[in-house]
Amino acid sequence: MAKDIIADHARWPRLEDEIFKVNKECKEAIKAKGRDKVIDSTLGTLIDDDGNLIAFDSVYDTLKDMDKKSIAGYGAIEGNEAYLDLLIDNCFGSYKPDAYIKAVATAGGTGAIRHSIWTFLNQGDYVICPNWYWPAYHTMCEEFDREFKTYEFLDEDFNFNLEEFTNTLDFALEKRDRVLCVFNTPANNPTGFSINDAMWDRILDVIRKRAVSGKFICILLDVAYIEFAGDGSQKKFFQKFSSLPENIITTIAYSMSKSYTAYGIRAGACIIISSNEDIANRAFDSMKHSNRSIWSNITHAGMNILVDIESDEKKKKSYEDELIANRRLIEKRASAFVESAKEVGLIHLPYFGGFFISIPCENPKEVAEKLKEKDMYIVANKNGLRFAVCAVSEEKCKISPKLIKEAIDKVNK
Amino acid sequence: MAKDIIADHARWPRLEDEIFKVNKECKEAIKAKGRDKVIDSTLGTLIDDDGNLIAFDSVYDTLKDMDKKSIAGYGAIEGNEAYLDLLIDNCFGSYKPDAYIKAVATAGGTGAIRHSIWTFLNQGDYVICPNWYWPAYHTMCEEFDREFKTYEFLDEDFNFNLEEFTNTLDFALEKRDRVLCVFNTPANNPTGFSINDAMWDRILDVIRKRAVSGKFICILLDVAYIEFAGDGSQKKFFQKFSSLPENIITTIAYSMSKSYTAYGIRAGACIIISSNEDIANRAFDSMKHSNRSIWSNITHAGMNILVDIESDEKKKKSYEDELIANRRLIEKRASAFVESAKEVGLIHLPYFGGFFISIPCENPKEVAEKLKEKDMYIVANKNGLRFAVCAVSEEKCKISPKLIKEAIDKVNK
Repeated sequence: MAKDIIADHARWPRLEDEIFKVNKECKEAIKAKGRDKVIDSTLGTLIDDDGNLIAFDSVYDTLKDMDKKSIAGYGAIEGNEAYLDLLIDNCFGSYKPDAYIKAVATAGGTGAIRHSIWTFLNQGDYVICPNWYWPAYHTMCEEFDREFKTYEFLDEDFNFNLEEFTNTLDFALEKRDRVLCVFNTPANNPTGFSINDAMWDRILDVIRKRAVSGKFICILLDVAYIEFAGDGSQKKFFQKFSSLPENIITTIAYSMSKSYTAYGIRAGACIIISSNEDIANRAFDSMKHSNRSIWSNITHAGMNILVDIESDEKKKKSYEDELIANRRLIEKRASAFVESAKEVGLIHLPYFGGFFISIPCENPKEVAEKLKEKDMYIVANKNGLRFAVCAVSEEKCKISPKLIKEAIDKVNK
Repeated sequence: MAKDIIADHARWPRLEDEIFKVNKECKEAIKAKGRDKVIDSTLGTLIDDDGNLIAFDSVYDTLKDMDKKSIAGYGAIEGNEAYLDLLIDNCFGSYKPDAYIKAVATAGGTGAIRHSIWTFLNQGDYVICPNWYWPAYHTMCEEFDREFKTYEFLDEDFNFNLEEFTNTLDFALEKRDRVLCVFNTPANNPTGFSINDAMWDRILDVIRKRAVSGKFICILLDVAYIEFAGDGSQKKFFQKFSSLPENIITTIAYSMSKSYTAYGIRAGACIIISSNEDIANRAFDSMKHSNRSIWSNITHAGMNILVDIESDEKKKKSYEDELIANRRLIEKRASAFVESAKEVGLIHLPYFGGFFISIPCENPKEVAEKLKEKDMYIVANKNGLRFAVCAVSEEKCKISPKLIKEAIDKVNK
C-alpha cells in the first residue's frame, strides 16, 4: 500500500457488519410476510415474544426520575466511588475473592477488555482465546498490535479443552514474557458454555505452574452474561482468584449492558484482582490514565442508575424481579430448543445459560443462506451457527432445531 | 522501575486532579461561610448565579420523553446515520467546507481527539500545541507514545504567534514525516482566545507550504466551545478547509458536552475533512475500527437527543433559545470581568468567548493559594490562572479582577 496520511498501524478495511446485514434482510422479510412467519435469530439483545426490545422498567423509571443535573454533569475520570463499590458487590455476590480489589469505570465491557489488553501486554504479545469467540477481541488485537491466537474450545466430550489451552499458553510464553488469557464465561458468547468449578481448579493449576519468575499472566474474565447464567452459584468460581502469585493478575470485564438491559448506556467496569496491593493500585493508575486518554469519563446516568437501584431496597427488589423473570424466559426458550434438538438429533454445544446456543457445522454461511428459504435468519460464524435464545420466542425455539438440522443436511450432504 | 505485570508503556503515576482538590476546598468554604461569601471559579461547566449546574430543559425533557427502548438498544458502531448527518450540519452552520466530509461518533470530544492522534500519527511523531492548553492533550500523547511539543501561544501584541507555530511545525517535520497540529479555537480553553479568519489564512499558508511530498499534516480543530463563541459567524473559518492538498487532513472534535449541556452523556464526533474521497473513507474505516476496539458504540440516548431536537422545529427553537440565553449570560459575566480588569489594570489574555478567561502571572499556584484568603477558589495552571466565567455570577465577576490583581502583586512583589 502506498504511503499516505493514514498511519500504517491504523489502516483497516471497513469493518463488515454481517449481523447488521442479515438483520436488515430479516426485517424486510418480517415486513413482507408478517412477524409470526419469520424466525429472527439475528439479535444480541433481549427481545420479547412480540419482537420488542426488553428494557427493564426498574432501570428506565430510575433514569426518568433522575435529577437532570446529575445526568448532565461529568462523572469522575476513574468512575464514581459509590458506583464502583456497588458494582464490585454486585459482580461477586457472596464470592468476593480474598485479594486486593480495585475497579475503574469503563464504557461497557468493551472498555474493560481494551484496558486489560493495553495495560498488561506489549505490542507483539499474545491474547489467547477459545476458537468460539466474540469477534471484537480479534479487532482489539489488530488495533493495539497484539497477537491473537485461538485454541480448540472444547474436547470431544464437550469439556473445556485443557490440553489445547495449555499448549497455546506454553506457545505464547515460549515466544514472549507476557500473555493474556481471555475467558468469556459463564454463559459464553456465542455458545452458552460455562467452565465449571472443577475445571477452573485445573486451569488455575496450569497457569500457576507457568507463572515463573519473569513471566506475567493476565486472566481476563469477560462475564457479560453472568446475571443470566444461574441463580448466584455461578459466581462461586470468583473465590478461586484469591492469593494467586503476584505475577498473575485477574481482571473482570463487568457490563451493565445485559444485566440492566442497558446496552446503549455504555456503562461497565474493569475490576482488578491482585494479591499485591501496590500492583492493584498501579493497575488502577494505568487504567485511569487510559480513561482520561480515550473517553474522559463514562455516562453519568449509567453510574447513577446502578447506584440508585442498588442502594434502594424497593428499587432493587423490582429490578431483581425483572431480572429473574427474564432469566426464566430465556431458560424456557433454551430448554425448548435443547429438547427439540435432542428429538431431531441436532448437535449443539452444551448450553448453561446466556443469550446464545451454538450449532457446530460445516459451511455455516451456506447453511444460514439455506435457512432463509424457511424464513429463519441466523448469524453464521467460522465454526457454526449462533442461535439467539435471547430473541426467539419459546414456540419458535421449539421448531427451529428441525429447520436447522434439515438445512445442515441439505448443504453438507 | 522493576519489571512487573504492568507493561512499561502503561505505567503512569496516579493522575492528580488539582481541579477536584481545589473544588473540594471551595465546597467546604461555601458550607462554612455561605455561598454568597465565596467565589467558586473551579468548575468547567455552566453554573447559574445560585451555584446550580445548568442543564437545558430542551435537552433533558427530550431525554425524559424518549422511548426507553431507543435508550436501551445499541447504537451503530460508527454512530447512527441521522445523528452524524445532523451533527455535521450543526457544526458547520452555513460554512461547510467544499471537501469530502465523513464523521464517526465518539465519546465526547475526547474520543475524537484520541482518534486523530491515533490514526494520523505513529509512535514518536509530534503533536504540536500552544502552551495554554487542555491538559488531556498531553495525557493522550503519553498514553499513545506520541511526542507533545508546545509553543508560545500569543506574541507580545496578543496575536496568535505565527512565528513560534511555524518554528515548531518545522522542528516536528524535520524530525518526522507526520505531525498533528491541535488548535483549540474558537473560544479556547483555558483562555477564551479565538484565532481570527485573517490569521487562519496565514496559518494555512504556512501549513500548505510544508505539505511537500512525503510529509503528512493533520490539523485538529477542537471546537468544544464553538456554540459559545458567537452568533454563527465564528464558523466562517471552516470554509477555509476546502481543497487542501491531500497530504493535509483536517479533523474536528465536535462535542455535545457544552453545546447541549450534556457533559455526562458522552456524545460527540470526529468529523473528517479531506479533498480526497478515498482518504476520507479510509480515515472513517480506521476510526470505526477504533470505535469497535475501545467503546463499541456511544451512548444511544445522546445521539437520539441531537436527532430529536434538530429534526423537530419546536424543540429546536426551545433549544436555541436556551443556548442563546446562556451564551448571553456568559457574555455579560465576561464583560463585567473585562471591564473591571481594565479599571484595576489586571492583564488577561484576549477573551472572545467560551467558558474561561486566563490571567498570565508568575507563581500562579501561590497566587491561587493567596486568593483563598479572600474566599476565591481558582484553578492555577503553568502560566497563570483560569477564571471560570461559566461558573461565577456577574456580580462576582465584577469584583474578582481587583482581588486577583492584589494577590498577584502581593505574591510577586
